[in-house]
Amino acid sequence: LLYLADAFIQSYRFPPHSSITAPSDSDSADDEVSPREKMQKNSKGGSDFCIKNIKQAEFGRREIEIAEQEMVALMTLRKRARSEKPLAGAKIVGCTHITSQTAVLMETLAALGAQCRWAACNIYSTQNAVAAALAERGFPVFAWKGESEDDFWWCIDRCVSLDGWQANLVLDDGGDLTHCIYKKYPNVFKYIKGIVEESVTGVHRLYQLSKAGKLCVPAMNVNDSVTKQKFDNLYCCRESILDGLKRTTDVMFGGKQVVVCGYGEVGKGCCAALKALGSIVYVTEIDPICALQACMDGFRVVKLSQVIRHVDIVITCTGNKNVVGREYLDRMKNGCIVCNMGHSNTEIDVASLHTPELTWEHVRPQVDHVIWPDGKKIILLAEGRLLNLSCSTVPTFVLSITATTQALALIELYNATEGRYKQDVYLLPKKMDEYVASLHLPAFDAHLTELTDEQAKYLNLNKNGPFKPNYYRHVSAQSFRIKSTI
Amino acid sequence: LLYLADAFIQSYRFPPHSSITAPSDSDSADDEVSPREKMQKNSKGGSDFCIKNIKQAEFGRREIEIAEQEMVALMTLRKRARSEKPLAGAKIVGCTHITSQTAVLMETLAALGAQCRWAACNIYSTQNAVAAALAERGFPVFAWKGESEDDFWWCIDRCVSLDGWQANLVLDDGGDLTHCIYKKYPNVFKYIKGIVEESVTGVHRLYQLSKAGKLCVPAMNVNDSVTKQKFDNLYCCRESILDGLKRTTDVMFGGKQVVVCGYGEVGKGCCAALKALGSIVYVTEIDPICALQACMDGFRVVKLSQVIRHVDIVITCTGNKNVVGREYLDRMKNGCIVCNMGHSNTEIDVASLHTPELTWEHVRPQVDHVIWPDGKKIILLAEGRLLNLSCSTVPTFVLSITATTQALALIELYNATEGRYKQDVYLLPKKMDEYVASLHLPAFDAHLTELTDEQAKYLNLNKNGPFKPNYYRHVSAQSFRIKSTI
Amino acid sequence: LLYLADAFIQSYRFPPHSSITAPSDSDSADDEVSPREKMQKNSKGGSDFCIKNIKQAEFGRREIEIAEQEMVALMTLRKRARSEKPLAGAKIVGCTHITSQTAVLMETLAALGAQCRWAACNIYSTQNAVAAALAERGFPVFAWKGESEDDFWWCIDRCVSLDGWQANLVLDDGGDLTHCIYKKYPNVFKYIKGIVEESVTGVHRLYQLSKAGKLCVPAMNVNDSVTKQKFDNLYCCRESILDGLKRTTDVMFGGKQVVVCGYGEVGKGCCAALKALGSIVYVTEIDPICALQACMDGFRVVKLSQVIRHVDIVITCTGNKNVVGREYLDRMKNGCIVCNMGHSNTEIDVASLHTPELTWEHVRPQVDHVIWPDGKKIILLAEGRLLNLSCSTVPTFVLSITATTQALALIELYNATEGRYKQDVYLLPKKMDEYVASLHLPAFDAHLTELTDEQAKYLNLNKNGPFKPNYYRHVSAQSFRIKSTI
Amino acid sequence: LLYLADAFIQSYRFPPHSSITAPSDSDSADDEVSPREKMQKNSKGGSDFCIKNIKQAEFGRREIEIAEQEMVALMTLRKRARSEKPLAGAKIVGCTHITSQTAVLMETLAALGAQCRWAACNIYSTQNAVAAALAERGFPVFAWKGESEDDFWWCIDRCVSLDGWQANLVLDDGGDLTHCIYKKYPNVFKYIKGIVEESVTGVHRLYQLSKAGKLCVPAMNVNDSVTKQKFDNLYCCRESILDGLKRTTDVMFGGKQVVVCGYGEVGKGCCAALKALGSIVYVTEIDPICALQACMDGFRVVKLSQVIRHVDIVITCTGNKNVVGREYLDRMKNGCIVCNMGHSNTEIDVASLHTPELTWEHVRPQVDHVIWPDGKKIILLAEGRLLNLSCSTVPTFVLSITATTQALALIELYNATEGRYKQDVYLLPKKMDEYVASLHLPAFDAHLTELTDEQAKYLNLNKNGPFKPNYYRHVSAQSFRIKSTI
Repeated sequence: LLYLADAFIQSYRFPPHSSITAPSDSDSADDEVSPREKMQKNSKGGSDFCIKNIKQAEFGRREIEIAEQEMVALMTLRKRARSEKPLAGAKIVGCTHITSQTAVLMETLAALGAQCRWAACNIYSTQNAVAAALAERGFPVFAWKGESEDDFWWCIDRCVSLDGWQANLVLDDGGDLTHCIYKKYPNVFKYIKGIVEESVTGVHRLYQLSKAGKLCVPAMNVNDSVTKQKFDNLYCCRESILDGLKRTTDVMFGGKQVVVCGYGEVGKGCCAALKALGSIVYVTEIDPICALQACMDGFRVVKLSQVIRHVDIVITCTGNKNVVGREYLDRMKNGCIVCNMGHSNTEIDVASLHTPELTWEHVRPQVDHVIWPDGKKIILLAEGRLLNLSCSTVPTFVLSITATTQALALIELYNATEGRYKQDVYLLPKKMDEYVASLHLPAFDAHLTELTDEQAKYLNLNKNGPFKPNYYRHVSAQSFRIKSTI
Repeated sequence: LLYLADAFIQSYRFPPHSSITAPSDSDSADDEVSPREKMQKNSKGGSDFCIKNIKQAEFGRREIEIAEQEMVALMTLRKRARSEKPLAGAKIVGCTHITSQTAVLMETLAALGAQCRWAACNIYSTQNAVAAALAERGFPVFAWKGESEDDFWWCIDRCVSLDGWQANLVLDDGGDLTHCIYKKYPNVFKYIKGIVEESVTGVHRLYQLSKAGKLCVPAMNVNDSVTKQKFDNLYCCRESILDGLKRTTDVMFGGKQVVVCGYGEVGKGCCAALKALGSIVYVTEIDPICALQACMDGFRVVKLSQVIRHVDIVITCTGNKNVVGREYLDRMKNGCIVCNMGHSNTEIDVASLHTPELTWEHVRPQVDHVIWPDGKKIILLAEGRLLNLSCSTVPTFVLSITATTQALALIELYNATEGRYKQDVYLLPKKMDEYVASLHLPAFDAHLTELTDEQAKYLNLNKNGPFKPNYYRHVSAQSFRIKSTI
Repeated sequence: LLYLADAFIQSYRFPPHSSITAPSDSDSADDEVSPREKMQKNSKGGSDFCIKNIKQAEFGRREIEIAEQEMVALMTLRKRARSEKPLAGAKIVGCTHITSQTAVLMETLAALGAQCRWAACNIYSTQNAVAAALAERGFPVFAWKGESEDDFWWCIDRCVSLDGWQANLVLDDGGDLTHCIYKKYPNVFKYIKGIVEESVTGVHRLYQLSKAGKLCVPAMNVNDSVTKQKFDNLYCCRESILDGLKRTTDVMFGGKQVVVCGYGEVGKGCCAALKALGSIVYVTEIDPICALQACMDGFRVVKLSQVIRHVDIVITCTGNKNVVGREYLDRMKNGCIVCNMGHSNTEIDVASLHTPELTWEHVRPQVDHVIWPDGKKIILLAEGRLLNLSCSTVPTFVLSITATTQALALIELYNATEGRYKQDVYLLPKKMDEYVASLHLPAFDAHLTELTDEQAKYLNLNKNGPFKPNYYRHVSAQSFRIKSTI
Repeated sequence: LLYLADAFIQSYRFPPHSSITAPSDSDSADDEVSPREKMQKNSKGGSDFCIKNIKQAEFGRREIEIAEQEMVALMTLRKRARSEKPLAGAKIVGCTHITSQTAVLMETLAALGAQCRWAACNIYSTQNAVAAALAERGFPVFAWKGESEDDFWWCIDRCVSLDGWQANLVLDDGGDLTHCIYKKYPNVFKYIKGIVEESVTGVHRLYQLSKAGKLCVPAMNVNDSVTKQKFDNLYCCRESILDGLKRTTDVMFGGKQVVVCGYGEVGKGCCAALKALGSIVYVTEIDPICALQACMDGFRVVKLSQVIRHVDIVITCTGNKNVVGREYLDRMKNGCIVCNMGHSNTEIDVASLHTPELTWEHVRPQVDHVIWPDGKKIILLAEGRLLNLSCSTVPTFVLSITATTQALALIELYNATEGRYKQDVYLLPKKMDEYVASLHLPAFDAHLTELTDEQAKYLNLNKNGPFKPNYYRHVSAQSFRIKSTI
């Protein structure tokens, strides 16, 4: 059984344009031999890797260089690493998407003193050229696009188990690597200083382990850091809702009537962007406080039934299930666009549309027309999966924040004094969260003000932060709801 | 000594137009006799009150009726009170500003079953006509505009100590009533079920009592309820920054360059409003996370020194002290407007402007020109006190949220089962916070969506809320900073 | 008969705060003697003026200095006047509102070489202290606040007819001065090089004269210059709608439902401001092109009957008559605010509200409650007159644009070669319109780009402008409609 | 010589996704035989057409049906055509892009009574499947994707010259069809009632003909109709700037510093969209009136040299040439994105970048990296051609407005009384322009208000419009500049 729990992970950060930038990636014709059966060496004779094609290294290097330009925070960490090596002696085993952004992270970890071994957390998302560029530089990478399930676990295994090499840190995205160690190599945990986990699903699993008393090392939940949450939800969705709709449907936003279900951070981002471009936006909410905010922000708060007959676009951002059921789909007007920006693919009841009287036409990638007997059609995007991940790209800047958070979490766990972290799941300390933010400010030519001694005393704060208490958060509705099911 | 700790309380909710609507209020000529020396009776012969002039009752009644129109939530509570009286038996002693909005609250508490006795929490803020209207309806009110300090404490005393009447709830705004009971009538606490406190200062005092182990009844901090915070800060300031600047200076916003110091909730509101009206806004921040938000919202984050020479308007919203010191005031350009929207009057170093070489000209109420020897002048508003309270009005809608929160806090304390609340300071339960919000939705013709059973189960929520955990808050930077000094 | 044709003129640019800044203005008690019966001399012994009280000169001077700060364009003209005097020999007779801004204009005209004699165009709008300051500097000013009709014409007469002084330019605002010359001193036109007229009404009269073949000198219509129109309508209304509503009603904008009748420049300004502050705005339109623009800008275009029952605020901006008739007023909900931002007081059918069954309560200056028999009340502002002129102030910056346009029009007429202008009504040449704009750019620290020779050739433009043809205009719907009735 | 004058025409409305929706279009392998050598018949046996592959008809029909959904105005015209046939007897020869939107237009013209013969105005832009669907329905279409220059003229020839068929109306896009008739079939003009031309270039040519006295039939310039201009420029660019940048670079807009050169309608659209998504936008302008508008809209107006070193994105919208020359390109920072939204490809001096010391890397379609010797790279989009046409799509709704305007212009010319139109270039009558707008209002569920008789009289307007005079325009700076070179 492949432990990829949901569509979220499968599609997360799958870069839509990779096939454009590296056409050979999709060229199955060039080499049908499995990477596992090939013998490849990099230019220095190294062969501790397993990838698609080492010859793509140069192309991959250029992609990595492009990513470096926007990942300024990691580049800053590298500069600091010239004088100090906070990860000297660290041996990190990682399992994430293998993309140019991950490559920048890995090369930064190396610059900070760490050794790395890496596998892919998704069988489709590896950018082969990037993997080649990493292998060429001597990174033990085991990943290619289009792995079988057996390949997937084989790759992870090759990362964990190597004679004479003992990991002491785990960087995971989805929990499969952690799961593998639990199942096959529990002894490894003796040496592990901690796990850094980024995904909703992986964090969920860690909390379950913790609750069951089975978590045997400290774990850092970087998914819920303030900076990451704000960027993943509000700021990223503000842009990706427009991009996702445009790339799939070329719809004009001006004058369109849109209903957005849910006014958490994701909903706020969607509403703000659409309003700014001239759409008329309605909101549905279950929580009166969020509803009141929607009112004050200039949106009419309605029940879905009040507007479903005349809206042009329906967007779900609730984290809930069955928000747009068949009874609403039946009442939509001809040409209505339906899509999901929430945290799971349950919000639109897509299953209810697979009935004999309805005709499905697949008109473009990620676009289906579902046609009623009377000729009415709705335009369903990404079959109800996450629009922003399926039909848009995640900006490198957002990934930079995630990667920097991961790097700092690894540094924190590796350098923490004995006993500081127990066998539990932790949030990134507020101060390090603030540090991630501060590392990204130069990209905006932004200049922080420093407290004077007198002011710091007046505010009862340390001049270098943290500036807010650990409990101070801008948690979104969705992240809570998901956590509440834990 | 008068325990009115700061300018915040003195000016809070002092309605700027009351003198316009009721000119006789300010007419000291009409009656120089102290209310304490006058014998007045209402039309039913009652005399258990002490106010300026019972004849103003009709005018005051109209003001109350106007307020009722916007205070829909309290009116809804009154309707429900026809069948149930959750405050039956309650005896509330109150000490707040005596305004038309407070009158709506008091008459609602009475409709819910309570008896009330009331004094003013500020010697200037009483609307005499409103006090008259309340006295005419039989409320024991002891308050007038222009009390002496002795009058102030005498009025409070008259509320607390009455033979045959024993208060069991306290509604305070600033802590003076609570202080009086502690000092003079400590036995009263035996009967008190709890204290509801609304002001920053009063809450501060309660936390100090609690810390010192001297709090002898439960207290409810309604200042930090989510709904109140959002409205008092983000939404209210978004409007009052424009109103305050316009009423004092008639400045045109389009094209003006503005620097806003601090990007918490208040700063966010100010920035959003000014940007929307065509100003070019710069932000200063000490916290990198807030700074990054400012970047993403489209504001350049600068040090004050980078822009101080060319901005047209400087606005402080930090909660900090000495943010705009003399060194910045010296560098401002001719005609620069300087004002404060933060939580105290310390942000602009006004004291530094009282030096011999500078000339002050008082040009309008709340507007001073401070003139340098070379002729340069800056326009200082409200002498650095809170612009939104000094030069603008607080919309009735915002006061409605506060009053409703107070009413529900009283109901909660009065009906709580024995032992539910200890001798500590509590936040309003999340569910009641949500209830306050829901009572205000009809004003916007907003319709909440209800969870299905299936959805509630999926989200692990009760269908009637609370929809967020108690720790879920949108706390602003300032409120934290102030609390952090406790 | 007093030739003040409409409420527009009566209220135009009447500064609401003048009574605040100079309390003695309204102090009728201090001196009940008519200025015409008083003998006053300024400090240099001059007495060719007739004003309220020469002793107020110092206070008025300060008001003028404040105005100078924002009227940068006129100050720039003064600097240029050091080397050239384009109005040397000009003798200007003027009739406008006598305010601090007008004083800056008059003193600029003097600096450019002109002699001026001035009367007020409105019996109420004179700022007495400003008139005193002008008289103190030797300007022959004949104006005071509270003139009788007889005073009004006497003052104009004193400006026009002075032995040994012969005007050669006319600056009028409303057409009364022009009318007076036509009626009493037609010979004066022999010497007049032209009339500059600023008001809608005055321009209307000039076109009527021209049409009737009775215009005997060139006239410059500065009301319809592009720069003035954009500022008077779009940009000024964007701010004054908020200010006017706030000062009269303290209404909170967030979440309010508003219908704006008319989507010309004024309507666009109102809609943009209210949307930006969180109102939900509906638009009514008769012109499909404007309606389509409203759609694309994110407003629902409706018939008034569709929304009249549930909106909180109704704003008219059509230039039309009877847009909000009794049938709509009857259907408004309790507490609905009704006001007019259009070009005349005909848009709301206020007359229809003067029926026996309705009760009027005057609750504040410019605010009436009109109450239906069932208790429903609407809140009518400024009795349907122009909200932005009645309940708000016109920013000095807007007046600066008008005054600069007037100054340039006078220069143009005075220096035009013989025969360039016939006995007709002219618009300000595009190039001078652009010059007015360019003089205001430094206030925003704005830097124009200059065409290279090569670019100018490519675009077929002169490097110094005009950059648009004379026919290129952003004429608003209203200004056309009014002109179309000529 | 191929008369495709500029990149504008070559790229205009070339649908980026056509290759996605109809993969066989790009499949050169399937059939290398030229359509001119193939014999094809539609299902009814007709063969008066020449297209790629009649078998694609069904796929093309679906694309047409999708377009019909958004082209509501033409569908409304069809409904009206049931009772009247305003084009009965019309024989239209057309030369436009052959897309699904054009197909809706052609089928509408047929429904209105016309016969049509059609060729492509561009050798690349034909959607083969759509051409097939038209041919299947019996339309004589002569067009395929990838025509040679010889094919291009052969197709036009086949449309014009057919024994027994004599065109009496011309619909042209770019002027090639008109040119062909002038050169080869001048006699045809005897029968032609008029030419309708849509492109800037084609209109330019017509004005040149008119100026030279060689225009022998009336021509209608539909390019400059108000509705079309507003949509092509302001509203369309507001969306396409975001789409074009996102599809090519995946850049995050939040916090980016952007300079927009030119603040006409296109620049206004770009600035508004980017500001709304959190970019910090600077504007350069040559015209002080436009510059003042930029100030009031909240943008700093600068010279390019002031900001070129620190901006992240440079966008040209001037219609001018050499606005961003090598001296600016040299100073840009590493990673700066440069693109053009103006009316020609001259704005960025791309030629200056073709020097030996600079390296070009073509990284994606429409994206080049230009690399300086020191490693600095700029990201040049579409080689300086129009971003919105090269890297984005034009929404069907915008095309609907154009197509409806064309249809009405044809009806107007065909039905005009003898002598109404001379041998000159005309703008669409204001009333028909308004009619185009009104036909699109139902798409937004927008409801126009109708004037009462009384109001119409007051405004001196016809109740059915036109509501503005013919000279009333919202002409953009660019359109003027281009026309000024005529």
